[in-house]
Amino acid sequence: MLTVAMCVALLGCVQAQELQGHVSIVLLGATGDLAKKYLWQGLFQLYLDEAGKGHSFSFHGTALTATKKGQEVLVKVLESLSCPKDVAPGRCAELKDQFQQLSQYRQLNSTEDYVGLSKDIEALVQRKGLREAGRIFYFSVPPFAYAGIARSINSSCRPGPGAWLRVVLEKPFGHDHLSAQQLATELGSFFQEEEMYRVDHYLGKQAVAQILPFRDQNRKALDGLWNRHHVERVEVVMKETVDAGGRTSFYEEYGVIRDVLQNHLTEILTLVAMELPPNVSSSEAVLRHKLQVFQALRGLRKGSAVVGQYQAYSEQVRRELHRPDGYHSLTPTFAGALIHVDNLRWEGVPFILMSGKALDERVSYVRVLFKNRACCAQSEKRRVGAQSPCLPRQVVFHVGHGELGSPAVLVSRNLFRPALPGGWRELEGPPGLRLFGRPLSDYYAYSPVREQDAYATLISRIFHGRKDSFITTESLLASWVFWTPLLDSLAREAPRLYPGGAENGHLLDFEFSGGRLAFSVQQAEQLVPGPGSAPMPSDFQVLGAKYRDSPLVAAWPEELIVKLASDIEAAAVKAVRRFGRFHLALSGGSSPVALFQQLATGHYGFPWAHTHLWQVDERCVPLWDPESNFQGLQTHLLQHVRVPYYNIHPMPVHLHQRLCAQEDQGAQAYTEEISALVTNSSFDLVLLGMGTDGHTASLFPQSPTGLDGEELVVLTESPSSPHHRMSLSLPLINRARKVAVLVMGKLKREITMLVSRVGHQPKKWPISGVLPDSGQLVWYMDYEAFLG
Amino acid sequence: MLTVAMCVALLGCVQAQELQGHVSIVLLGATGDLAKKYLWQGLFQLYLDEAGKGHSFSFHGTALTATKKGQEVLVKVLESLSCPKDVAPGRCAELKDQFQQLSQYRQLNSTEDYVGLSKDIEALVQRKGLREAGRIFYFSVPPFAYAGIARSINSSCRPGPGAWLRVVLEKPFGHDHLSAQQLATELGSFFQEEEMYRVDHYLGKQAVAQILPFRDQNRKALDGLWNRHHVERVEVVMKETVDAGGRTSFYEEYGVIRDVLQNHLTEILTLVAMELPPNVSSSEAVLRHKLQVFQALRGLRKGSAVVGQYQAYSEQVRRELHRPDGYHSLTPTFAGALIHVDNLRWEGVPFILMSGKALDERVSYVRVLFKNRACCAQSEKRRVGAQSPCLPRQVVFHVGHGELGSPAVLVSRNLFRPALPGGWRELEGPPGLRLFGRPLSDYYAYSPVREQDAYATLISRIFHGRKDSFITTESLLASWVFWTPLLDSLAREAPRLYPGGAENGHLLDFEFSGGRLAFSVQQAEQLVPGPGSAPMPSDFQVLGAKYRDSPLVAAWPEELIVKLASDIEAAAVKAVRRFGRFHLALSGGSSPVALFQQLATGHYGFPWAHTHLWQVDERCVPLWDPESNFQGLQTHLLQHVRVPYYNIHPMPVHLHQRLCAQEDQGAQAYTEEISALVTNSSFDLVLLGMGTDGHTASLFPQSPTGLDGEELVVLTESPSSPHHRMSLSLPLINRARKVAVLVMGKLKREITMLVSRVGHQPKKWPISGVLPDSGQLVWYMDYEAFLG
Repeated sequence: MLTVAMCVALLGCVQAQELQGHVSIVLLGATGDLAKKYLWQGLFQLYLDEAGKGHSFSFHGTALTATKKGQEVLVKVLESLSCPKDVAPGRCAELKDQFQQLSQYRQLNSTEDYVGLSKDIEALVQRKGLREAGRIFYFSVPPFAYAGIARSINSSCRPGPGAWLRVVLEKPFGHDHLSAQQLATELGSFFQEEEMYRVDHYLGKQAVAQILPFRDQNRKALDGLWNRHHVERVEVVMKETVDAGGRTSFYEEYGVIRDVLQNHLTEILTLVAMELPPNVSSSEAVLRHKLQVFQALRGLRKGSAVVGQYQAYSEQVRRELHRPDGYHSLTPTFAGALIHVDNLRWEGVPFILMSGKALDERVSYVRVLFKNRACCAQSEKRRVGAQSPCLPRQVVFHVGHGELGSPAVLVSRNLFRPALPGGWRELEGPPGLRLFGRPLSDYYAYSPVREQDAYATLISRIFHGRKDSFITTESLLASWVFWTPLLDSLAREAPRLYPGGAENGHLLDFEFSGGRLAFSVQQAEQLVPGPGSAPMPSDFQVLGAKYRDSPLVAAWPEELIVKLASDIEAAAVKAVRRFGRFHLALSGGSSPVALFQQLATGHYGFPWAHTHLWQVDERCVPLWDPESNFQGLQTHLLQHVRVPYYNIHPMPVHLHQRLCAQEDQGAQAYTEEISALVTNSSFDLVLLGMGTDGHTASLFPQSPTGLDGEELVVLTESPSSPHHRMSLSLPLINRARKVAVLVMGKLKREITMLVSRVGHQPKKWPISGVLPDSGQLVWYMDYEAFLG
Repeated sequence: MLTVAMCVALLGCVQAQELQGHVSIVLLGATGDLAKKYLWQGLFQLYLDEAGKGHSFSFHGTALTATKKGQEVLVKVLESLSCPKDVAPGRCAELKDQFQQLSQYRQLNSTEDYVGLSKDIEALVQRKGLREAGRIFYFSVPPFAYAGIARSINSSCRPGPGAWLRVVLEKPFGHDHLSAQQLATELGSFFQEEEMYRVDHYLGKQAVAQILPFRDQNRKALDGLWNRHHVERVEVVMKETVDAGGRTSFYEEYGVIRDVLQNHLTEILTLVAMELPPNVSSSEAVLRHKLQVFQALRGLRKGSAVVGQYQAYSEQVRRELHRPDGYHSLTPTFAGALIHVDNLRWEGVPFILMSGKALDERVSYVRVLFKNRACCAQSEKRRVGAQSPCLPRQVVFHVGHGELGSPAVLVSRNLFRPALPGGWRELEGPPGLRLFGRPLSDYYAYSPVREQDAYATLISRIFHGRKDSFITTESLLASWVFWTPLLDSLAREAPRLYPGGAENGHLLDFEFSGGRLAFSVQQAEQLVPGPGSAPMPSDFQVLGAKYRDSPLVAAWPEELIVKLASDIEAAAVKAVRRFGRFHLALSGGSSPVALFQQLATGHYGFPWAHTHLWQVDERCVPLWDPESNFQGLQTHLLQHVRVPYYNIHPMPVHLHQRLCAQEDQGAQAYTEEISALVTNSSFDLVLLGMGTDGHTASLFPQSPTGLDGEELVVLTESPSSPHHRMSLSLPLINRARKVAVLVMGKLKREITMLVSRVGHQPKKWPISGVLPDSGQLVWYMDYEAFLG
């Protein structure tokens, strides 16, 4: 029965021979769970949809299983296939029979097996006088098997010239940026980018697949609405009631962020946020625009997410993975993340991603809530939800489950009447059903005429070469680049424990403020002890001590930045209150970036309108050069706060179209500018860093200028490129009312130790010359730099 | 019975003689409606509250009415006075009797009458061996009588040295800025500022009077919340069900904006928005902070408000004011206004003021709605309003009426628990009552233990000299300065007609977008015909024509600005698409301000990140000088959009701490900067204006520089101060791809006519030399400048 198919019975198949050739589909792991549950059914659907349209097919189920046993399994799978509801039973049996005849099992293990498969396909094609159109290899196997299979396909199973190869890969695609990159590089050595189809099955779900068509078909209504001026927030949610029991060996390694947020929810976010290409059926344009969303994402920090773990999880891990009694896992089973898309369209709009196991309901949706910009003259009780502009306006892509139970698109009736997409019909829900705060009758609601499994959809798209429904290497790596820093920073974080189900109550509700997320309800005690002796979040504190006889603030990096930012704000408020202005001189480099971000997003009371910003040092490049310190200031601070133009004082390194030419007297000009505006040339606060060679500002060891003498601003030379610099001199720095030195990261450990012991030796260690004449010096060091 | 009081029976009165002296209160218009209904009762309350605390009193009711008749009226009024509920009837009769003995009526007409009153007061004080503490004159008379009475009091009725004078004035305080100023000047010639108490009785309403104490007592909770980062919007609302029938003679002259928004609602807005002084019981500090709110208000434009008129109104006017059959009033009886407070605390937060007659309910409140920054992990049906951070959070000062029926302060229980103020208690409303979208049980709700009339409160505050409960001259004029431009621009506007009551439905709902308000429901037809032949809003259109052989766009001012802004945006988008950048040179002056505001608030798609801003001309003052053109650019445009620092090119008029010194070569430096960045020194768009003398940029008639020759940037002289200028030259302007000349206002009418006829005579009319070499010239003129 399971022999190579004879292409005689089907009219479509006959046409195909003449028109479009033969497609072989090889399902690797054909007897596994995924294949049994979804993939064979998807292939059958493909056959039903496409066989009449000009191709012939053969389906090859393969696995490591011996042929006989595999055949037996496959027989059962194929017998259990079902036809769409509108197909009569007799016809269905006929169609299943045809499909079974085109399908066969074969063991695929050694390279010879692959060679054999390829030869058999060629023989079949030749025997039937067909032209080979292409081959699809669907990897429904564990990732560790990928490389071997890929090598074999590449070496032994490629179709001849003129026919295409498509390999379909299932997640996980790595564990973080590095592992994803390694895997991608390995696959890239066997396949071209256009040959690879990485599946995120969420992209096949009908409501998700509807996002772009919906945006396209309702362009006119959405053009003015789909932006930061009108969107209040976007929620991308996947809630589950099941827990991870039985799967902890997988789950311990991944957790909810890698399992759901990094892939499914991020993909949905990009579909909502991307600029809509003029032609949404261009895969290339869609993929390009999706990638641009990643480029606009604001980096995640620890404060960008909250994490939880259902209480029974650690016990499940101990039992299933044979861990000792006292073992506690830190793997999150719940996460909420706040994402910002920093472009003109979305700046300031919170994108909230949330997922978890053992929650109170199973539901998955993306909800775009619009701002309420209306004011209603009639009393509340007279407002009609379907018409009143004062009631919530939203667009929801309801992916599945929940009280609605089916995929749907909902548009508030007081928003606009959407175009009804082909294959969708108006949805009638149970009376009294309320969704997202409003009765169902307040929405234009549509659902698919025929519900279709995601894999069936995706298999069809693979067949049609619709690459935009799959994850490209670029977009996969971009997603890992985005998520990995958060994952790293959460690695030591103890998740909040929750009981599971309805009992969770308000325990997992969270809120955002100043770009940070936090649980709404304070927790009385932390129930998960930390791993070993590493300090836990609850231990985070600012350590007060002395360094080189001056006050030292030591803390974990984020807390250190928070403390420094708040100290700077306090100094600013005090200075403005006393003198009407605050003169702040800032260093360049990477450490201050986090500080700038903190100042920009977390300090509403900062008197920016009265703050003058000066530079401690600058590289001799144009202001707009990505290497310039000013560019960092611009990107991370100035774009976000309102400092008057004339209060910003970039160093004049670029005069008369030249860079730091002595004869342009830039240093003298800056000196004059400082003298003219800053009383006694005494800055209110100077922020410095410290290099591994003991340099500070752009004053390097043995510098002939700036370490002493009369000059206030000097040109210097750096040992590293770009070599030419302009810098405040030590004598000028030491006139400041307050000097803060920020030192972070373990690379600074040695110099921190060294400098703690040396005396006043600015020629050798310029940082040792920082000693304000009458002002205050404070050291801000993170534990890595300080404790080592 | 109505004789001068004998101060024998009251212990407090005896103490008073020794301690604090005698206070005479003169109620002018003592037999009028306001006096009968509120003021005598308020004076009686004052007597009850204060007589025991160290003053003696005499109350003088006066009017033009003859003594006998006036006495009769007053007897009745005094008999109808009521005591607080907790006073026993016998005691009440006793107290009323004492008050009656202290009260008398007298006719006050001629100057002699005033002289007589003053003498009688002096005689009384002397006879009883009292010290005179002060005199209060309460003007409960029509405004036209103010001046005469004020003159007489000033000349004949001032108390002797050491005693104070307080005059109490009732609104209206003028009809617009000019009339208010005239009235204020007139009153100012008779009274010192500290002597005048202008009443806005809303400030005496208990919930309004509670705003500052509430903010003060809950400082800790509100400190982080009461700002743009947390407040979604503020609504200040006073809805009435009554119409203006019977009062149209007053109403026709005032309308709802002057009657309610300019005074009551604006006062409430200032109490909500003002910076809270450290000590809220300092009248001086409160008044100063209130005034600062006015300084921060963004100017109103026609688009800042929507107006309506109930359908029966015009008929009422025709009947009551004997107007002809076809007469239609344009007076608004409903208005919604959108106000922005442009300071760090409130920037971007909409303050919505709404009031109207013939609406569906009577209610008055101010509601502060907070942003929803929460995401809830549990399903909607499990959310408990009192705890869930996902349900609305608000603070409401419920002034009166509505379903609650009493003054109250409401604070959402999921926000914070407020301090219970003295004299207030927890409020229990009827079960099932819903307010502002939530059941009453979701709020901490407080109401006054004893409801007190606003006038009683204000009379007590006058007595205690609490000037912060009254309108100062400065604040009155500031309010008129703020409202008058809107009133002027609405004068020709036909209000939307509404049926009145519940039938209004959604007709008056309005929405804001890009700083403009509009009714939510489109109206099929305009039912009120416009006055005479003046163009109506529906006629507004952009007129296409020619001027000096170049395209002319003519329109009403607001439409002209909208058109010009959108043309500039289109040019910018096109240039950025083609060349990656857009070089825009902008003129200074007042006309572009509206353009800058339009660009800043209405054009989300403008490619600011790729736009370079140049100046057409600049005055030789520092950039931060209020007179500098750059300052206008900074305030109205740069603060609101994100142009990178190094894309902003101010003219270098201020080099080496000198202004436009020839030897600093600023013009040459600007020329170089242009050459370096702008291809062929050809700007993409130059925006010019035209002076009444035919100047453009800072190129004035007969200028020796800039009208021809090789120089691209020149120093020039202006006939008006500041005389020294820097300007682009005509040859440079004429290199532009596009030149737009914006001409607005009737002052430009003559020059517009003249220039339309002259040839190419730049020496005489510099504007006539604007003729792009290969670019396009477009004139943008409003009808006043163009049609005259």
